[in-house]
Amino acid sequence: MKKYNFNAGPSMLPREVIENTAKQCLDFNGSGLSLMEISHRAKDFQPVLDEAVALIKELLHIPEGYSVIFLGGGASLEFCMIPYNFLINKAAYLNTGTWAKKAMKEAKLFGEVVEVASSADANYSFIPKGWTCPSDVDYLHITTNNTIYGTEIRKELDVNVPMIADMSSDIFSRPVDVSKYDCIYAGAQKNLAMAGVTLVIIKDEKMGKAPRQIPTMLDYRTHVEKGSMFNTPPVVPIYSALETLRWIKGNGGLEEMEKRANERADALYAEIDRNKLFHGTVAEEDRSVMNICFVMNDEYAELEKPFFEYATSKGMVGIKGHRSVGGFRASCYNAQTMEGVNALIKCMQEFEAQH
Amino acid sequence: MKKYNFNAGPSMLPREVIENTAKQCLDFNGSGLSLMEISHRAKDFQPVLDEAVALIKELLHIPEGYSVIFLGGGASLEFCMIPYNFLINKAAYLNTGTWAKKAMKEAKLFGEVVEVASSADANYSFIPKGWTCPSDVDYLHITTNNTIYGTEIRKELDVNVPMIADMSSDIFSRPVDVSKYDCIYAGAQKNLAMAGVTLVIIKDEKMGKAPRQIPTMLDYRTHVEKGSMFNTPPVVPIYSALETLRWIKGNGGLEEMEKRANERADALYAEIDRNKLFHGTVAEEDRSVMNICFVMNDEYAELEKPFFEYATSKGMVGIKGHRSVGGFRASCYNAQTMEGVNALIKCMQEFEAQH
Repeated sequence: MKKYNFNAGPSMLPREVIENTAKQCLDFNGSGLSLMEISHRAKDFQPVLDEAVALIKELLHIPEGYSVIFLGGGASLEFCMIPYNFLINKAAYLNTGTWAKKAMKEAKLFGEVVEVASSADANYSFIPKGWTCPSDVDYLHITTNNTIYGTEIRKELDVNVPMIADMSSDIFSRPVDVSKYDCIYAGAQKNLAMAGVTLVIIKDEKMGKAPRQIPTMLDYRTHVEKGSMFNTPPVVPIYSALETLRWIKGNGGLEEMEKRANERADALYAEIDRNKLFHGTVAEEDRSVMNICFVMNDEYAELEKPFFEYATSKGMVGIKGHRSVGGFRASCYNAQTMEGVNALIKCMQEFEAQH
Repeated sequence: MKKYNFNAGPSMLPREVIENTAKQCLDFNGSGLSLMEISHRAKDFQPVLDEAVALIKELLHIPEGYSVIFLGGGASLEFCMIPYNFLINKAAYLNTGTWAKKAMKEAKLFGEVVEVASSADANYSFIPKGWTCPSDVDYLHITTNNTIYGTEIRKELDVNVPMIADMSSDIFSRPVDVSKYDCIYAGAQKNLAMAGVTLVIIKDEKMGKAPRQIPTMLDYRTHVEKGSMFNTPPVVPIYSALETLRWIKGNGGLEEMEKRANERADALYAEIDRNKLFHGTVAEEDRSVMNICFVMNDEYAELEKPFFEYATSKGMVGIKGHRSVGGFRASCYNAQTMEGVNALIKCMQEFEAQH
């Protein structure tokens, strides 16, 4: 039976990314060695890194004056690296969910933190609006997509301070005006690669201003100066990122990724809104096109487990909602197909017909 | 032509580790999903982590009261995490090379650091001896194998303070008395796995004593409490570690790994000592069995490049010495075979006969 992967992360990757990476693991570029055992200093690896960086700059139209690096440790490590490197006096954070809150917690170790707004009281079911950001902050930190709650900021915010964004779960799903950001970071395991590498895009002139000694590995300058090769980078995860970036470019770039994301999300949200068993959990204008959260209507609450089992029996994988929201979450990252979405919609319709 | 991989790291892995990992990348446990796209919360991944941890405990005979975790970021990140977590007042460091020095540099950001001894003046060609360690330090940090210089501490040191060891390049190559250490850490990309994961073994009672606030991701307690699942772990690198650990156990464990390492090293050092073209760079009693460094004798200095080209033409990969030492370095980690070592010895003998 065909499986449809709706995992929230690590998550579905294009099949050709998987197959090409597995192939290189057996024999890298016909060298007779595995990608798993080549030196990162081997002459064949530098082109991997260079092409990946070039494709990121091309796809995101990154302006001059920014560096692109790959790090290990996950986006969670960036939560402390951001204030370590960029918090001089005061930083603003928009609290849109678990990950935003975790990022904010780390910043408090380094300076004054202003929470400009929060939707915590509504279980993060919407993106706060109508707030203002103090003009004297070093940066405003946002989480563009909230994987757990299924909300998303899909248009650049109009603020008068530089932004820093955790784009872990929606990067490469739409064009972004990078010039509005001092830093963008993203754990790879949604739209970019297997887990084990983190992408960071940094405005060069903003590095080295923070009034503190930074441990070498936590200082972005270390990695920028050495082109992500200060220490051994995660070779295989970076290679899988390159394959994904090639796939994105070959499939029409970020405009096409956005179009496909909207098509998938429109179809699934339309079914959620139509189907008498389910409803969405998020304010309509803030619905994520990456993580689509829905729950049973109250009168059908006892059908939650049976629907999960029915969908699972039809090949749906990873649709259980996060415990903070309950119900269901269908993650539809770049590699997700309309075929997958339609298979889920069919489950929902068949299950509705049975009840 | 068959290639023999002498890379210093990332480095040779057993072929079955490579093939099994590549196979799981195509279809994980027959699930229809790739290892690259499964959730770390999937029920099939927890057993991977559990088995890997259990094998590490078994192979190293780790006593009660220690935790085993996997982290991202590389051993270089541990250089600052060690003092962040364990340096209360004063720490001692044994300076045996580039990596030891880098570890020491980070510690100086957190407290008083005593360099108990150094062989820097001799280009780190031996392990300092006859030094004493102050009894009032929180720990003594050592680097058991010095990848760049080819020296190794292969017996537990006899000191009266707890030790912390960077075992990145010789872990699992011999039995270790873990009880002598408060912490052992190792980047995976030599004897354990593809690059992208770091192994840390920690004495539980030593955590949480340092008088400072530690960013969440840099606090070992975070990862111990969550069983390496505080954030998304590097799934595929961890899987490749599991495969290697199974291979080590299936091949006789650490006693057998040590025996094989000694056999390989004895054969290669014997040839280096015998061959009129070459000599070793390291004091005999401190020779590493993992990284075997040798250079041309002065009168044959002009043959360095020709020998490199000759060996390369015969399938040797990665034998160029680090720029800090020059000449050649044959890294012979666990996966290296006598066949590989004999192929290199044959090159050395053939080249000697030609000149």
